[in-house]
Amino acid sequence: MADRPEIHRDLSEFVERWLPSARAMQLRVQYYDGGVLELAAPLSLNDNDKGTAFGGSLYTLVVLSGWGMVYLRCRERGLEPNIVVSHGEIEYLRPVTTDPLVARCDASDADFERFFATHAERGKAAIALAATVSSDGSDAVLFSGRYAIIPG
Amino acid sequence: MADRPEIHRDLSEFVERWLPSARAMQLRVQYYDGGVLELAAPLSLNDNDKGTAFGGSLYTLVVLSGWGMVYLRCRERGLEPNIVVSHGEIEYLRPVTTDPLVARCDASDADFERFFATHAERGKAAIALAATVSSDGSDAVLFSGRYAIIPG
Repeated sequence: MADRPEIHRDLSEFVERWLPSARAMQLRVQYYDGGVLELAAPLSLNDNDKGTAFGGSLYTLVVLSGWGMVYLRCRERGLEPNIVVSHGEIEYLRPVTTDPLVARCDASDADFERFFATHAERGKAAIALAATVSSDGSDAVLFSGRYAIIPG
Repeated sequence: MADRPEIHRDLSEFVERWLPSARAMQLRVQYYDGGVLELAAPLSLNDNDKGTAFGGSLYTLVVLSGWGMVYLRCRERGLEPNIVVSHGEIEYLRPVTTDPLVARCDASDADFERFFATHAERGKAAIALAATVSSDGSDAVLFSGRYAIIPG
């Protein structure tokens, strides 16, 4: 599939307007095709004393890639619910040295069909999403998060 | 016990010098007495669209409270190893509305005695640390992280 900037511009504007600490990271939407969302941020604003990616910035990048996936899927359906993260787990396998840092969330349509069916029925729903950050061609960070949509 | 700013100044300087995204959050060391470390950050630079604390900022605060605890315990022993976080898990129980946000890491001397004994023997060691963020008098965020010290 191809990048759909006309859809993900809305998420970029949300970050810019409402999330000052993500804005300070210069976090931006790099790619969204309906199934995959990629967020990027420059290493120079998100590094540590060793010149590799800072663990806090890596977490913000992955947790927002999951949150943004829910946000964009909702927008595509004309929904504007309140989206919250309730749980996050991150494993740092090795240092990330790529520039920019890129978090990738890849979510199945089937999971989102169930999620929206539950939301239609009960007015709320939860979904587990995974995201990764690669460095030099293989996974360096693994993340899983739990997100809920609740009445806005 | 009492606050020991002469010890934790070193951690403040580390954040200021080496962690640009934590610096942008205006993260600072609020308290350290040898057993408890508290890090604080203003809500206004770390909020979301609902005016409550942003999940990414909350994570950075708690993960650094654990990292900082290892850092300060090492400094007190004259050690300057490489300290890394290998795993983090965070549970968001409810929105955080306090200003400033405060993360608190409370670690036992016994755990650190074992940690440093292992380090002395093998040149590396790992420790699990917990941290919390309270809001209006009760826990709103629970965190556990795994940290390692490895040859610098």
